[in-house]
Amino acid sequence: MHIVIAPDSFKESLSAGEAAQAIHDGMARILPKAHFTLLPMADGGEGTAQSFAQQLSGDFHTCQVTGPDFSSITASYVIVPSQRLAIIDVASASGLPLLAHHQRNPLHTTSLGTGELIRAALAHDVDEIIIGLGGSATTDAGAGILVALGAKLLDSQDAPISPTGDGLGRLAHLDLSQLDPRLKRVRLTAACDVDNPLCGPQGAATVFAPQKGASPEQVRQLEQHLHRFASLCRYQLGKSIAQFAGAGAAGGIGATLGGLLGAQLVPGVALLLERSQATPYIAKANWLVTGEGKVDGQTLHGKVPAALAQVAKQFDVPVVVLAGRVGDDCEALYERGVTTILPIQSGPCDLQHAFEHTAENLRRTAENVARLIAAQSEQ
Amino acid sequence: MHIVIAPDSFKESLSAGEAAQAIHDGMARILPKAHFTLLPMADGGEGTAQSFAQQLSGDFHTCQVTGPDFSSITASYVIVPSQRLAIIDVASASGLPLLAHHQRNPLHTTSLGTGELIRAALAHDVDEIIIGLGGSATTDAGAGILVALGAKLLDSQDAPISPTGDGLGRLAHLDLSQLDPRLKRVRLTAACDVDNPLCGPQGAATVFAPQKGASPEQVRQLEQHLHRFASLCRYQLGKSIAQFAGAGAAGGIGATLGGLLGAQLVPGVALLLERSQATPYIAKANWLVTGEGKVDGQTLHGKVPAALAQVAKQFDVPVVVLAGRVGDDCEALYERGVTTILPIQSGPCDLQHAFEHTAENLRRTAENVARLIAAQSEQ
Repeated sequence: MHIVIAPDSFKESLSAGEAAQAIHDGMARILPKAHFTLLPMADGGEGTAQSFAQQLSGDFHTCQVTGPDFSSITASYVIVPSQRLAIIDVASASGLPLLAHHQRNPLHTTSLGTGELIRAALAHDVDEIIIGLGGSATTDAGAGILVALGAKLLDSQDAPISPTGDGLGRLAHLDLSQLDPRLKRVRLTAACDVDNPLCGPQGAATVFAPQKGASPEQVRQLEQHLHRFASLCRYQLGKSIAQFAGAGAAGGIGATLGGLLGAQLVPGVALLLERSQATPYIAKANWLVTGEGKVDGQTLHGKVPAALAQVAKQFDVPVVVLAGRVGDDCEALYERGVTTILPIQSGPCDLQHAFEHTAENLRRTAENVARLIAAQSEQ
Repeated sequence: MHIVIAPDSFKESLSAGEAAQAIHDGMARILPKAHFTLLPMADGGEGTAQSFAQQLSGDFHTCQVTGPDFSSITASYVIVPSQRLAIIDVASASGLPLLAHHQRNPLHTTSLGTGELIRAALAHDVDEIIIGLGGSATTDAGAGILVALGAKLLDSQDAPISPTGDGLGRLAHLDLSQLDPRLKRVRLTAACDVDNPLCGPQGAATVFAPQKGASPEQVRQLEQHLHRFASLCRYQLGKSIAQFAGAGAAGGIGATLGGLLGAQLVPGVALLLERSQATPYIAKANWLVTGEGKVDGQTLHGKVPAALAQVAKQFDVPVVVLAGRVGDDCEALYERGVTTILPIQSGPCDLQHAFEHTAENLRRTAENVARLIAAQSEQ
């Protein structure tokens, strides 16, 4: 029996790799002779690099970079030599979990470190850099990335601005002429699981800055600064960066990567499915087991279980979805190819308890799914 | 495909019959051609009569009786004419849910109404009365039942005591000579899902009176009164009523039924399995689906899922257990014949939310189990 285990990460508790391991441990207890393939499916958020590394046999490299609060931190990126490919998670150098709650303030955080990781990746012999958007602590529209790569972001006195959400409010002049020339030799691809624009009611400030620590007044300021940045890009560089889907991802890093640096924005799960060996593994599987923190009608929109189900359906492979929470309107998921959606909580409990027991709950539920599969195989 | 649906009740939210219906509704959506047999398995607690009525085609009868607080209430019992059998739930006339929280006080509650139901049942042409213990509001050691059936319970002045936990403290003289003579013509069977003795640290007062509203001081009084009652039974009647397993059931009603009225105490689930058509249905089933509010290592001890699994195992029928809460030490249940244990909560939530959504959660989980079964049948 071939079983593919391909969960997303469970936010605030398990990476996709850890979730896959927990599901495997539960099922392997009951089905010791089954052949398991673990394909962690982090989709643009934290853990994208890890998922690629695991699926494509990549190597982790670490280096010292500027953290979101300008302190010096150690961050990592992945190189897949066989594919001349680098993968960088925005969360590694500029991620929200790097800051304590009281430090979180997207007016003062920067994506500089992510730009420094891109520079480090350019030193390798690669043709493409995939950048996983998601989990950033920033709303600087990628200003830090631009600065790290050689762009000049100047105020009205021609002094460099601080590459932060706050600094963008003083931006008067943009000069990309000194960008690292190696950028021209690589393809940039951004793995992105939201389709928000840069500005407006669905934009990076309004939708995402509050969860990064911004007050309503700070959201209003950030919104204004993002508008200013977009206007300068249009009038000084002739580039439209604000409106396309995904421009608002990772505090506007999507806008800079897609609008100024020529990156292609692709849904993370589609990218992973396309580049990895997932499809041939799924094609020959008897079961596909996936999982996500919350599963509901929204899961249709570019999330891991829906994307996997679409592939599995082509090959008539049944899909088991294990969920931290099962929400409403799951009907469309069944139509898309999901076979069953089972919740993992052991009983009534608070969120904190749920977060702390995700691995155990996944393991136990996966074991019981395996028991059901094994019983039926015997019939 | 034959599917037997045989859940216990889900305490504080669904009767066994309602739980069976919810599971059926979920599964029948996906398996419209399957043949379902619903066997609600209330095991001595509230709903035993209903379970018997449904499984044996019994008729409900109602009558006016004395409630646990001496008010007049309408209660019911079941007659199965074909088997010359009556079934009475203690909970119907003397149950805790009949009282508001502030009214609950086992010093002042009585089992009189249950005795009146026994009298009503004796008026039918029956050979046996099954009495479902469990869910009582009383700790009167069945004093109310005795009085309703003609016994004299007198104080030191030869005045009748109040048949309550409090009244037992004034009991000086017991006279059973005037008991209803029809009792001699029927067999009494008590369905009982606990094995506590009448007195002591595992007794009716210490273990169960607190959940019926007794304070620690009241528990101490009740314990003393139960001791007094047991001593009088021993010295005046030559009967040992305190030590046997189940004597402490239903506030000591087990002691009176088993020790004074000759009832046989039988685990409820065993009784139901023995008297109903469950075994032949299970024997030809492809699946047995059961459920219980909480499933853990304790579930082995006379609870519905374990008892059913034991029967199912004889016929190699896989058993799916749906649980409001999955606890620890379930390993022994798998050995007993349980195939899989799946939790039903949709996500992290408080107890109240869980109680209010049991039907919906059962229906949804049962539907998803059916989806898994259907997918595998197609393979």
